[in-house]
Amino acid sequence: MTQPGVVLWLTGFSGAGKTTLATATAGELARQGYPVEVLDGDAVREHLSKGLGFTQEDRNVNVLRIAFVAKLLARHGVYVLVAAISPYREARDEARRMNRNFVEVHVATPLEVCVERDVKGLYAKAKAGQLSEFTGVSQPYEVPTSPELRVDTSRCSVSEGVAAIVSRLNQLGFL
Amino acid sequence: MTQPGVVLWLTGFSGAGKTTLATATAGELARQGYPVEVLDGDAVREHLSKGLGFTQEDRNVNVLRIAFVAKLLARHGVYVLVAAISPYREARDEARRMNRNFVEVHVATPLEVCVERDVKGLYAKAKAGQLSEFTGVSQPYEVPTSPELRVDTSRCSVSEGVAAIVSRLNQLGFL
Repeated sequence: MTQPGVVLWLTGFSGAGKTTLATATAGELARQGYPVEVLDGDAVREHLSKGLGFTQEDRNVNVLRIAFVAKLLARHGVYVLVAAISPYREARDEARRMNRNFVEVHVATPLEVCVERDVKGLYAKAKAGQLSEFTGVSQPYEVPTSPELRVDTSRCSVSEGVAAIVSRLNQLGFL
Repeated sequence: MTQPGVVLWLTGFSGAGKTTLATATAGELARQGYPVEVLDGDAVREHLSKGLGFTQEDRNVNVLRIAFVAKLLARHGVYVLVAAISPYREARDEARRMNRNFVEVHVATPLEVCVERDVKGLYAKAKAGQLSEFTGVSQPYEVPTSPELRVDTSRCSVSEGVAAIVSRLNQLGFL
């Protein structure tokens, strides 16, 4: 049997830096010789969850689909980096229960910073009432109570964030 | 980079023997040391496609979700055995395009035999009008025109079927 992989789950607001951190960390792990896969919430939605909306229930279903795919990959030794807002604790905890080596990283960039960045222009739309279900504006984000790590990208560079993640993975015995 | 894996796609009527063949072949490949994963249409539906029905469109969406997950696994070297009715040629061909090493196995057990077996009691229900969308009864099954292999489980034992599949994989250079 292959060594079991790891599911590194990055949760946080839209614009917090989840995808950037996931991609950069994947690059670093690949450089170290680990098999990696990034499952980005938006990209996966396209393939696995067309037709699902953004209600609490639909968001949770989407999160559990990602968790299912992550599990399949991780049990073949893949280091799976998930970047998904995953705003509800219940679904994140279920994702954790489904996966043996689960590392939750709260990308804890403050909402004000994410709103200011507004990389995709979504906060502006949400505030103008054009998106009725938007985390941090019209929907809650349930802050992780005991994640394995918190990274605030308004206080560190991408490479510092990656270093913090890699160091935590090391500490947990996963590298 | 890992050796790319293979997607072995078993298509055929309900009751044709797809899951049995997939599981037995997976066992044999695992014995030979290959990493394997079985994606069974019904099981995957539960995790990835709750809410989807059995119209042509929904069936095709389900098939493409399986193909997407198979692709992720195969690119990490996994031998993925898919057992799914996948009745429409268009979706099977799309699954093939998505995957580099794709082996289509038509589990070509005749409909009469599947109806007679009726392992899950579904043909009886479909004939009684309790299932309005059922492949072979009220919906077509588009026979694969050039699959890599055909196996008719009414004419061979499970172990003969597995042997035929393994031999074909060998011939294609995948083992």
